[in-house]
Amino acid sequence: MSFNVPETDKKRVVIVGGGFGGLKLANQLKGSGFQVVLVDKNNYHQFLPLIYQVASAGLEPSSISFPFRKIFRKREDFYFRWANVTGFRAEKNTVSTSIGKLRYDYLILAAGTVTNYFGNANIEEAALPMKTVEEAMTMRNIVLSNLEKAVTCEDPVQKQELMNIVIVGGGATGVEISGVLSEMKRFVIPGDYPDLDVSKINVYLIEASSKLLGAMSPHSSASSEKFLRGMGINVLMNTKVLDYKDNKVVLDNGQEIPTQTFIWVSGVRATAFNHVKPEQLNRGGRIMVDEFNRVKGTENVFAIGDICYQTEKDYPNGHPQLAQVAIQQGVLLASNLKKLENGEKLEPFHYRNLGSLATIGRNKAVADFANINTHGWFAWIIWLVVHLRSILGIRNKLVVLINWVWSYLTYDNHIRLIMSAKKHITVDDEED
Amino acid sequence: MSFNVPETDKKRVVIVGGGFGGLKLANQLKGSGFQVVLVDKNNYHQFLPLIYQVASAGLEPSSISFPFRKIFRKREDFYFRWANVTGFRAEKNTVSTSIGKLRYDYLILAAGTVTNYFGNANIEEAALPMKTVEEAMTMRNIVLSNLEKAVTCEDPVQKQELMNIVIVGGGATGVEISGVLSEMKRFVIPGDYPDLDVSKINVYLIEASSKLLGAMSPHSSASSEKFLRGMGINVLMNTKVLDYKDNKVVLDNGQEIPTQTFIWVSGVRATAFNHVKPEQLNRGGRIMVDEFNRVKGTENVFAIGDICYQTEKDYPNGHPQLAQVAIQQGVLLASNLKKLENGEKLEPFHYRNLGSLATIGRNKAVADFANINTHGWFAWIIWLVVHLRSILGIRNKLVVLINWVWSYLTYDNHIRLIMSAKKHITVDDEED
Repeated sequence: MSFNVPETDKKRVVIVGGGFGGLKLANQLKGSGFQVVLVDKNNYHQFLPLIYQVASAGLEPSSISFPFRKIFRKREDFYFRWANVTGFRAEKNTVSTSIGKLRYDYLILAAGTVTNYFGNANIEEAALPMKTVEEAMTMRNIVLSNLEKAVTCEDPVQKQELMNIVIVGGGATGVEISGVLSEMKRFVIPGDYPDLDVSKINVYLIEASSKLLGAMSPHSSASSEKFLRGMGINVLMNTKVLDYKDNKVVLDNGQEIPTQTFIWVSGVRATAFNHVKPEQLNRGGRIMVDEFNRVKGTENVFAIGDICYQTEKDYPNGHPQLAQVAIQQGVLLASNLKKLENGEKLEPFHYRNLGSLATIGRNKAVADFANINTHGWFAWIIWLVVHLRSILGIRNKLVVLINWVWSYLTYDNHIRLIMSAKKHITVDDEED
Repeated sequence: MSFNVPETDKKRVVIVGGGFGGLKLANQLKGSGFQVVLVDKNNYHQFLPLIYQVASAGLEPSSISFPFRKIFRKREDFYFRWANVTGFRAEKNTVSTSIGKLRYDYLILAAGTVTNYFGNANIEEAALPMKTVEEAMTMRNIVLSNLEKAVTCEDPVQKQELMNIVIVGGGATGVEISGVLSEMKRFVIPGDYPDLDVSKINVYLIEASSKLLGAMSPHSSASSEKFLRGMGINVLMNTKVLDYKDNKVVLDNGQEIPTQTFIWVSGVRATAFNHVKPEQLNRGGRIMVDEFNRVKGTENVFAIGDICYQTEKDYPNGHPQLAQVAIQQGVLLASNLKKLENGEKLEPFHYRNLGSLATIGRNKAVADFANINTHGWFAWIIWLVVHLRSILGIRNKLVVLINWVWSYLTYDNHIRLIMSAKKHITVDDEED
C-alpha cells in the first residue's frame, strides 16, 4: 500500500487526527494553496460531547459521527487517508503509518488523547472506556445485556454485580453518564424490566479529588454534586480506585463494590508517537509546543489540541483539554502556516475562554461564563442550543432534535439495542 | 440461570422468535388470559424489508430495530427473554434454551430462516449474508473499507478485487441491494473518492434461474431486470455460483469474477431445532404443519411464518416466505389458541395475497396486485408509503422519512461510517 497522494509543487500539510482541532485546521486551509492530507484511524469525525447519549441509548451513533469524505466532498488538493499513524521522523520529514510513509512539508499532530488506566492491567481489561463512539456503543451493549442477564440470574451475588453500575471519574463525561443512567433507572428500567427490583440498581460515581467537574467553577462543581445526590447517585468524593478484582472495584477506603458494569472515565494521556524524545513531553505525555504550537526542537512539526502542552500567562500549567482550545489553536495555526509561507511574523496563541457547560439531566445543567455561573433549567437550555448548533449538517440537527424532544416528552431513551457488526473492521497493522 | 417466569394458573404460550409472525401473535394475545413468553436471540424486532438501506448507509440500524421491551412495555402476563432456543421435547412439553428449560402449554415456533450456503464452506466463510441488521452493518463496513483500501492499493489485481461488487441471488434483497449500490456508485462515490476511477467499480448481480424476483409476476421480473441493466449493473441470468476461491467467485459458465465484496443473498433454510424428526420436515428444512399451523405429530406445538411448510389449494407447494404470510398466520393462530381453550372449532388458514412490492432505485419499483402489475414512479411511491406505515413508532417514522427525503433531494447516503462496537455481545452458549 501507499498513500497515493500526488507530488505537486504545492507545499504538503499532513494533519494527523480529525478531531475538533484537526478538522478546524483542515477547514481553514481551504484555498490556502497547500496540499492537505488528513489521516485518521476512523473514516469519520466524532462529536465527543454527545457520546454519553449514544452510550445511554438516546442517540444513534451516526447522529454524532460525520464521514470525512462527506465533509470534504469535492474539496480540491485535499486527501483523506484511513490509517494508523505510528510515528514521524523530524529529520527526514516523513510520517510513518499503517499504509506506509509520507513526506511532509508541515506536520500537524492533532491526535488527541487516549484513556489512561494508570498502568493497571486489571482495570484496563475490565473497564468500559468512553473516548470514542465505538466505545459508547460497546457500553450501551454491556449496560443493556447486563440488565437482561440480571433478569434470569439466580445467584444473588452475581445478580447484584449485574445491577450495580460504577462510574470512575467525576469530570464532565462521568457526571453526564451518571446523570443519564440514573434517569434510565428512574424512567426507563421500571417499565422495561417489571421483573427486576429497580431499587437494587445502584449507580456509583467515584471521584479521586474533592470536586466534580474539576475544570469548572466551585459553584458548578457544588451544583453538579448536589444535583447528582438528589438524583439518587452514590457520589464518593476523595476516593481512589486501587484495583478491579473478582468483579469488584477496590477502593482506597477499603470498600469493595461488586459490579460487572465498570465505567472508566477517570483520566487520559496524550496519544503517543514513535521517535518523540522524552524531553519533548510534559505530564500526561502531552507534547510541549511553543506559543505558535510548534513542537519544541522542530522546525515544521506542530501539535494542537489535547495532545499538546502549551503555557501562557493565565495558563502556567498548560491549557485545559477542551474542544474550544483545540478549535482556536486550529484556526490560528491555519493563518500562521500561511504567514510562514509569506515570510510574515507568526502570531502567538492566546486562549479565549468562551465558558464551559455540563449537563446532568432533565432541566439540569451547569454553566460557567466570564461573569456568571448559572445552574438548572436556563443552563440546560444553553447547553442544548450550544450543542445542537455544533452538530454538523441540517439533517443531523433535525434527527438529534427529534430524538431530544421525543426523549424529553416521553421520558424514554429509544435506542435500547444490544447490537454490533459481527466483523469489526480496523485499519491494517502498523509499519514503521 | 433460569427463565424466572412465575408458574400461575394461566396457560403458558411460549413464542420462539419475534419476527413478523411471532410479534403479531404476541400482540394479538394481549388480554387473552394466556401467560405469554417471547424468546428471541436479539433484544429487538427487526424490520427486514429495509435492512438493505442499512447496508447501503441510508438508514441507521436503530430506525428499523425495535426493542421488544419497549414494544411490550407494561404489558401484563408478558415475559421477554433474551436467549438462544436450541430445541424442544414435545413429549415433555419443554423448550431448551441457553438460559435453561421452560415448560409450555403451547409452543409456537416462529424463528424464521437462516442464510443457506448449500454446504459450501468457502462461500460461507467469505460471503456477506444479509439476513439481519447486524449483518447489514457488517456489509456497510466492508463495502466502505474496501473502497478506502482501493484508494491506497498499489497492486492492480487486488485493486480490482476491491472495486468489484458481486451480489448472488436475484430475489428482492439482491435486486434492492444491487440497485442502491449502483446509485452509490453513480451519485456518492465519485464525489467521495475523487482519486478512484469510478468506471472501474463493477456491480454484478448473479441469478441461477431465468427470472429476477422469482416470487413476483413475469411483468415485474422483466421490469426489474430492465431497470437494473439500465442502471449499469452486470446482470447474469441462468448462472450458478460454484465456489469462492483466491478472492474469485467461480461461475458455472467457467467465468471467474475477482472480488472482496461478495454478497450472498441467494437462499435460506428454516432455523433448525433439536429433536425435530426428519419426517416432520419438508424442503428447505421447513417444518410441516396442518391447516391450523399445528406441527405434524404434535398436539400443542405450532409453527408460523417462513419456518413452516403449509399447503392449501392455491399453494400446493407451500406458501411463499413473505412477511404477509407470517403476519396472517400469527393473527389466525392467536384466535385459534383462544378457540382451543374454549373448546371451539379451529379455523383453517387461507393466505390472502395483498400484493407484493420491490424497489430498485430512485423512482423505480415494481408492484403486483390482484389485477394490476405496475412499475416505475407510481409503484415506487406505493412502496415508500407501505413501508413507512409499517415502521413502528412515530419517532422512527419521522427519522426514516427525513433520511429518505434528504437522500432523495441530495442524492446522498449519509451514514458512510466504518463502525462497530468493539466487543460483540452474544447470548450465552446453548444448553440442551
